[in-house]
Amino acid sequence: MSPVYETDVVIIGAGPVGLFAVFQCGMLKLRCHVVDALPALGGQCTALYPEKPIYDIAGHPDILAGELIENLIEQAAPFAPDYHLNQQVVSLMEDDQKRFHVVTAAGREIICKAVFIAAGPGAFGPNKPPLKNIEEFENTSLHYMVGRKDCFAGQTLMIAGGGDSAVDWAISLAEIADKIYLVHRRDKFRAAPESVARLNNLVAAGKVEKCVPYQLKALQGEDGMLSSVVLGGLDGDSRDIKCDHLLCFYGLAQNLGPLKEWELDIAQYHIPIDPTTGQTCRRGIYAMGDVATYQNKLKLIATGFAEVAQAAHHAYNLVYPDQALHFEYSTTKGIPEIEPHMNSEKLQQGKG
Amino acid sequence: MSPVYETDVVIIGAGPVGLFAVFQCGMLKLRCHVVDALPALGGQCTALYPEKPIYDIAGHPDILAGELIENLIEQAAPFAPDYHLNQQVVSLMEDDQKRFHVVTAAGREIICKAVFIAAGPGAFGPNKPPLKNIEEFENTSLHYMVGRKDCFAGQTLMIAGGGDSAVDWAISLAEIADKIYLVHRRDKFRAAPESVARLNNLVAAGKVEKCVPYQLKALQGEDGMLSSVVLGGLDGDSRDIKCDHLLCFYGLAQNLGPLKEWELDIAQYHIPIDPTTGQTCRRGIYAMGDVATYQNKLKLIATGFAEVAQAAHHAYNLVYPDQALHFEYSTTKGIPEIEPHMNSEKLQQGKG
Repeated sequence: MSPVYETDVVIIGAGPVGLFAVFQCGMLKLRCHVVDALPALGGQCTALYPEKPIYDIAGHPDILAGELIENLIEQAAPFAPDYHLNQQVVSLMEDDQKRFHVVTAAGREIICKAVFIAAGPGAFGPNKPPLKNIEEFENTSLHYMVGRKDCFAGQTLMIAGGGDSAVDWAISLAEIADKIYLVHRRDKFRAAPESVARLNNLVAAGKVEKCVPYQLKALQGEDGMLSSVVLGGLDGDSRDIKCDHLLCFYGLAQNLGPLKEWELDIAQYHIPIDPTTGQTCRRGIYAMGDVATYQNKLKLIATGFAEVAQAAHHAYNLVYPDQALHFEYSTTKGIPEIEPHMNSEKLQQGKG
Repeated sequence: MSPVYETDVVIIGAGPVGLFAVFQCGMLKLRCHVVDALPALGGQCTALYPEKPIYDIAGHPDILAGELIENLIEQAAPFAPDYHLNQQVVSLMEDDQKRFHVVTAAGREIICKAVFIAAGPGAFGPNKPPLKNIEEFENTSLHYMVGRKDCFAGQTLMIAGGGDSAVDWAISLAEIADKIYLVHRRDKFRAAPESVARLNNLVAAGKVEKCVPYQLKALQGEDGMLSSVVLGGLDGDSRDIKCDHLLCFYGLAQNLGPLKEWELDIAQYHIPIDPTTGQTCRRGIYAMGDVATYQNKLKLIATGFAEVAQAAHHAYNLVYPDQALHFEYSTTKGIPEIEPHMNSEKLQQGKG
């Protein structure tokens, strides 16, 4: 009973560049489905630093990453994209009509004329600690990102990781949590000095307890609810710490997952593209944003936004091969209307 | 007594792309001077459609052109650029130390290591009607753009032109002006149908009087203040109409002016660049935004923003030839500080 969808473009990655791809495609009347391994829209902006300011988005002197994502979601909304979250793309196949069949880990199949790979680091998910029963707790009491902070009010939290995300979230959640344990395998945190200083103040005030150098060793609990986490020390000692939620911030996976099998000439985790079209070495498959590379490529969000426009205009010819694209400014034409029933229509609900 | 300045980059064109170039250069500690033929910042966003919404700026679902410009000015402000407005660039010379000498119509000379041509249509000024004493009234009672609307409150205005700008400004200024004459050499206006309908309502209400088909023939007045404008009809008749201000909207000049002499391989009013560096065929001279061209070039503001980032990173090597550029995200490094005295220092006040 796997649902099958048909659309113009499948966008892999729902970060800022993937979201703007929905908009740029929409302006050219290309319909989109978006797939992301993370459970929320926004890619690393949402997962890693939603409350950090970004300064280099043109026209926004200073915007929080989370706010940028909200704006981009709003900008994409008139084109009614279908979002398939919390599921990797597991396979891609091209049929003899040059259509692509994209299948997700949730068993959904999306048939399309072009694939946009807007996978920054992490479109294939967070790095996970090697704990054997981890799936049992994921999304109920074990988390790789913070959706709504207020879910953690009054709770005892364990935060694992040694970088900016772990430290920043420990600081931010200390305002509302009952108690926070911060676990890192080294004594030293790789975070901004101001953040480390704020962390140390919270430790002195008893709001945060550092567990260093320790690693996660085992999860205990039932029905998806953690009761405690066992930590292992470097010299073989262990601690069993009661907590309600575990938040793991080990970064996002620099792992292109099944993309590696798509014959895209991947080198060093990046996909080479023609910078004037956005197309990879395979017709109909485009890449943009941090995963795409070419000579002098800059990993800036502004660059990803422009790459998306380039790819959308090029892909237009695959979707509308007989219609010349008449270039118009948005001030002149406004936002085109897309027939909403076309976009989200499921072709069949029970295919096999 | 011509002032001479020294800086890293001279940006020609103060439209959205030129303004974002100040920011991108600033992030790399490149100091900038900006030259524009128009009397205000913002290029055509300010001159032609400040009150029109733009929909395709990433992260802004809907922003007025004028508001976008205000944001970009604010974003550039920490880097304290020097703006030289209301003056064309009249010459460019390269010395034997590979520095460029840019001279403006106001006699200012700016010495720099890189030149960014961010000249959309119009960086070389508005199209002007062929009236012999026109300079006498310019910027006092004859205008090519609207700076502050309230200057026209209670006044009798003549607006000349047949496109969107003329029609939109007639509608907008009808709210505050005493009376508006709208002069066009044809009966029909090339404007959005809704705008033409609104215009016709204002004509019916007596707020706007169409003078068609007529052309501007002569300006009358003294000390820079118009008293009346003489219009000529197609069959040789003429009308003398009293008014306080004349606003001419004949578009911006598709004229690259002195650029044509800079050996940039200009073809069809566009400058070819390498899309991965932004550089023209001349070392140290870059182009970006609507004036720049390469295969599959899109004339989108988002594309111009990315081109600017590319050029700034490439130009960095000209300014700091011995320092490798360490790439960092704005969320990590914030906005770098530029020593303010370096930027606006005049080298000498009386050179010749």
